[in-house]
Amino acid sequence: MSKQASKLVIVTEKLLLNKIAKIVEEAGSTGYTVVQAGGKGSRNVRSSGQPAVSDTYSNIKFEVLTPNRDMAVKISDEVAAQFFDDYSGIAYICDAIEILHAHQF
Amino acid sequence: MSKQASKLVIVTEKLLLNKIAKIVEEAGSTGYTVVQAGGKGSRNVRSSGQPAVSDTYSNIKFEVLTPNRDMAVKISDEVAAQFFDDYSGIAYICDAIEILHAHQF
Amino acid sequence: MSKQASKLVIVTEKLLLNKIAKIVEEAGSTGYTVVQAGGKGSRNVRSSGQPAVSDTYSNIKFEVLTPNRDMAVKISDEVAAQFFDDYSGIAYICDAIEILHAHQF
Repeated sequence: MSKQASKLVIVTEKLLLNKIAKIVEEAGSTGYTVVQAGGKGSRNVRSSGQPAVSDTYSNIKFEVLTPNRDMAVKISDEVAAQFFDDYSGIAYICDAIEILHAHQF
Repeated sequence: MSKQASKLVIVTEKLLLNKIAKIVEEAGSTGYTVVQAGGKGSRNVRSSGQPAVSDTYSNIKFEVLTPNRDMAVKISDEVAAQFFDDYSGIAYICDAIEILHAHQF
Repeated sequence: MSKQASKLVIVTEKLLLNKIAKIVEEAGSTGYTVVQAGGKGSRNVRSSGQPAVSDTYSNIKFEVLTPNRDMAVKISDEVAAQFFDDYSGIAYICDAIEILHAHQF
């Protein structure tokens, strides 16, 4: 069942988790993955000591596989329009993805 | 030592961690990375409150770099055959990878 | 504001977090993401029981978006030269990236 896909990646602030998940689902995506992340600008990553799990990872990284580039761009445009004036965030796409197997995700 | 590689990504349920790690190693892979992840279908991500580390991230994301596409497909086929009838999961490949440096991983 | 980019990924030991972040910033990168990760060679991933957050994820995965391949290679070379004789690590690049939106990251 191998098929081409686009992967949209959105890294932004954790408090936007549910709002972005809603946008992704309303765009018709059949699934996404969320990972906790830190990064430049995050206070704790820049501290001199070793970061703790509870403090450092205040960002989230969404990964959304979409059947075509248009859906990825639509989600990205919506997220940027709603949130990137007020919150830190970046959205990028990788088109070199091929789905090999999928089940209920 | 730059060289082309394929990256296989498998997102599935956390309880399969050790079983999939075994499949990856038996296929001859020299290394993999595992990250905790949440996603659509995960109960806690959809809750209205902010998720806690201990609750939300009940999925895992494997990333396996393989020297060629065949090894990635072989691992994916084996994981899907053994688990994707009974567990949620997705496997996809990205061929646009180039390894720059590696040491004991 | 769509524009091509390279994504450099570095997976290595967690204790190098701040040192690698410094190299990334000094190279002129405008941002990076850090995720906790486990992997082959990590003692706890190979244990028979289910891993705990506090034990398993002793590695980190850096993802750095750079405007061109040269900056990614420069960061990778510096990290490998300083650390990969003494620490486990891998650095790879994906050139098939396109940034759609970015704000203060």
